[in-house]
Amino acid sequence: MTDTSRRNFIRGTASAALLAASPVAPTARAADATKGRLAYEYQHVPVPLPFDAKSLQGLSEKLIQSHWENNYSGAVKALNVLRGRLAQAAGDANTPPYVYTGLKREQLLRTGSVVLHEQYFANLGGDGKAPADLRTRLAASFGSYDAWETEFRKIAMGLAGGSGWVMLGYNEQLKLLENHWMADHATAPAYTKPVLVLDMYEHAFHLDYGAAAAKYVDAFFTNLNWDSVAKRL
Amino acid sequence: MTDTSRRNFIRGTASAALLAASPVAPTARAADATKGRLAYEYQHVPVPLPFDAKSLQGLSEKLIQSHWENNYSGAVKALNVLRGRLAQAAGDANTPPYVYTGLKREQLLRTGSVVLHEQYFANLGGDGKAPADLRTRLAASFGSYDAWETEFRKIAMGLAGGSGWVMLGYNEQLKLLENHWMADHATAPAYTKPVLVLDMYEHAFHLDYGAAAAKYVDAFFTNLNWDSVAKRL
Amino acid sequence: MTDTSRRNFIRGTASAALLAASPVAPTARAADATKGRLAYEYQHVPVPLPFDAKSLQGLSEKLIQSHWENNYSGAVKALNVLRGRLAQAAGDANTPPYVYTGLKREQLLRTGSVVLHEQYFANLGGDGKAPADLRTRLAASFGSYDAWETEFRKIAMGLAGGSGWVMLGYNEQLKLLENHWMADHATAPAYTKPVLVLDMYEHAFHLDYGAAAAKYVDAFFTNLNWDSVAKRL
Amino acid sequence: MTDTSRRNFIRGTASAALLAASPVAPTARAADATKGRLAYEYQHVPVPLPFDAKSLQGLSEKLIQSHWENNYSGAVKALNVLRGRLAQAAGDANTPPYVYTGLKREQLLRTGSVVLHEQYFANLGGDGKAPADLRTRLAASFGSYDAWETEFRKIAMGLAGGSGWVMLGYNEQLKLLENHWMADHATAPAYTKPVLVLDMYEHAFHLDYGAAAAKYVDAFFTNLNWDSVAKRL
Repeated sequence: MTDTSRRNFIRGTASAALLAASPVAPTARAADATKGRLAYEYQHVPVPLPFDAKSLQGLSEKLIQSHWENNYSGAVKALNVLRGRLAQAAGDANTPPYVYTGLKREQLLRTGSVVLHEQYFANLGGDGKAPADLRTRLAASFGSYDAWETEFRKIAMGLAGGSGWVMLGYNEQLKLLENHWMADHATAPAYTKPVLVLDMYEHAFHLDYGAAAAKYVDAFFTNLNWDSVAKRL
Repeated sequence: MTDTSRRNFIRGTASAALLAASPVAPTARAADATKGRLAYEYQHVPVPLPFDAKSLQGLSEKLIQSHWENNYSGAVKALNVLRGRLAQAAGDANTPPYVYTGLKREQLLRTGSVVLHEQYFANLGGDGKAPADLRTRLAASFGSYDAWETEFRKIAMGLAGGSGWVMLGYNEQLKLLENHWMADHATAPAYTKPVLVLDMYEHAFHLDYGAAAAKYVDAFFTNLNWDSVAKRL
Repeated sequence: MTDTSRRNFIRGTASAALLAASPVAPTARAADATKGRLAYEYQHVPVPLPFDAKSLQGLSEKLIQSHWENNYSGAVKALNVLRGRLAQAAGDANTPPYVYTGLKREQLLRTGSVVLHEQYFANLGGDGKAPADLRTRLAASFGSYDAWETEFRKIAMGLAGGSGWVMLGYNEQLKLLENHWMADHATAPAYTKPVLVLDMYEHAFHLDYGAAAAKYVDAFFTNLNWDSVAKRL
Repeated sequence: MTDTSRRNFIRGTASAALLAASPVAPTARAADATKGRLAYEYQHVPVPLPFDAKSLQGLSEKLIQSHWENNYSGAVKALNVLRGRLAQAAGDANTPPYVYTGLKREQLLRTGSVVLHEQYFANLGGDGKAPADLRTRLAASFGSYDAWETEFRKIAMGLAGGSGWVMLGYNEQLKLLENHWMADHATAPAYTKPVLVLDMYEHAFHLDYGAAAAKYVDAFFTNLNWDSVAKRL
């Protein structure tokens, strides 16, 4: 996610919605970006799917396409609009703090959605076979690879029927590799690098599996791209 | 936060509560820790205050001591106990996922409390004078240093009377420096490095200021340790 | 929801899961229920759909059946099991408060799911035509019937892509009829009687509409049973 | 809470802040209130403390006064302002749903704060002696009066160090008397009548007890007004 070709800096807001809605490759962030007000003006551009939407096993093209377009790209678009709203409100002394924080919560929620969805899609497109060194690494934290997978799936099933994420993450402060339950896009372990994330919002599977969440988790594991996990660790 | 002298690995649980309750310097993590089950067995040891509790301006020794001992160290202790409970439940096939996630939420909450409190205390003990290069860096994201401080304080006041954190954080994925509203220890921006965190739980200030949250935020800025901010950026 | 034939009191836990999983008409609460420990022993029995699952317009039998069986009845079952777990933990002095509250949160979440789903299904099965007196009543609080519907739909769309409920509720303390945004089953306005509730969890519509939440809200209004709304007001 | 003398309807917003900030007895709701837009225009007036702030045992006048004035009345004021903001945004077709829901969340939070604080203060000012019939009633749900108190206190201690409420509530739909854990003002059991509520936000006790939450809970029970509990049951 360090590639600048994936991001873009747009001063105005006019073209933002347009850009945000189309999966075109973003141009580089403008050279004078550091002189701007990135916190208020940065306009994210959706990162294209890192695999062919037709290529997954047990996750239909229709589902993946809708997930990318409506849920992920929708969050990008909302986040871009919210930045404009925040810029307005930040400069308005009449905006009470508790009105401002209403906007900040929405920003936090969409920020989480954008970041986690990008991690999620980057986790897919693989053959699901965990290489030996990663199995060993997981065993070092969880006792065994199976113990890790059991907990990861248990958290997923505890979220089934609702929304949220399961994250295998590396806590940069405690120096720990752990699985986390996250109730929504705004729930997250502080200062933690996502290593493997599973979307348990129902939009991630209902079109294909209805309420059969366990089957969706199976499909997630089948398509898991362990290379991306390896890079993050 | 990378110093291993601050962490410790204890196989049993017997001595954990004792250790967790006393601010002694922890011993090094055992050499064979990577062969264990750190996710379930890691026992954190409270990091001592990085400054003399008597030395802050406008924040009393009594307040700081209570904050460190009861709120921060209490969270460490709870987190250590929870890991033991999780180990039990993870091995018990009769524990339904929705019971397990009850424990995971408590773990997430205490993990956030531990991480954020350590960041918070490390933010204090300074002279409050932001060096020119940091002011420039903040201006690059927020338009001006003052714009940054205005938003940071506005979020704080929006949380006043309740609980939560304000975080200036660097989003590792979006490559953005932003302020975030966080409703509690379990709310956080995903994949974000804390740079400057302000505790707005009422235990951080009521003993000294009652409901006068703005005065507490003033005191926070007066004692701000910009060196720690610089290191994180 | 006052009919005792809809509830049941079961001392043991053996038959609870069985009962909870089948939509049979529950028997009456045992006569000596008030001598028991209802808070820990009460076992809810799913209330059958108050309409034919095949009869709705624009909401398929498959969707409605899955919603009732998996999401609603699943919540009933989980809630019944949680009561048993709470009974165990309440009697165990070794259970720390922060472990106990993990269970209490799950109980709160499932309680909200059960209550709100029952209200939701009771809201459906009608012809969608708001009688004049109800339109007048809504106009008294919102300026006009249309203003009410506009806000109700706006809240729904703000939740689209995630989870939560929209509730038209009567606040018993403030004596106000208002629309509320609710992020999940555990979010609710205190001391408020639900009058009209709309499920915005994605399980309520993805099978039929995918991400097209607005079309689902249209279908909800088409099938709205205003008689149930009238009874609650 | 049914007394109309405690509420007031103000068309304009000019005098609202003034009124909201002073504990005067509100005048009756205007006769034509039902023709207005109460959902957007209702302006609540703080209910005076139902007891002398000096009269409680173990809870100082300073604490109680600050709690009433800053936390409770502050929430009333914020809620009144938010209604005006919602009225503006509701009429503005350019306000995206996810901006609107930011305001709705803040409204929900303050609504809970107002309702629960009024219940809380009405719970205090008594002699703490539970009459026999109430003890019997609680025993019917919890096995014994002591079992009820044990769970109520356990939930309180699980919230200590953070924020939230403990509620003994009567679920109008499930016909159950239960204790509930509530993480903040916006967390609540749906369709439940508060019977006894305990404020566990730290502003409720830190001035008097610091982090010693258990002592605060003791003081709460000492001053408990069981008459108010009886009336609600």
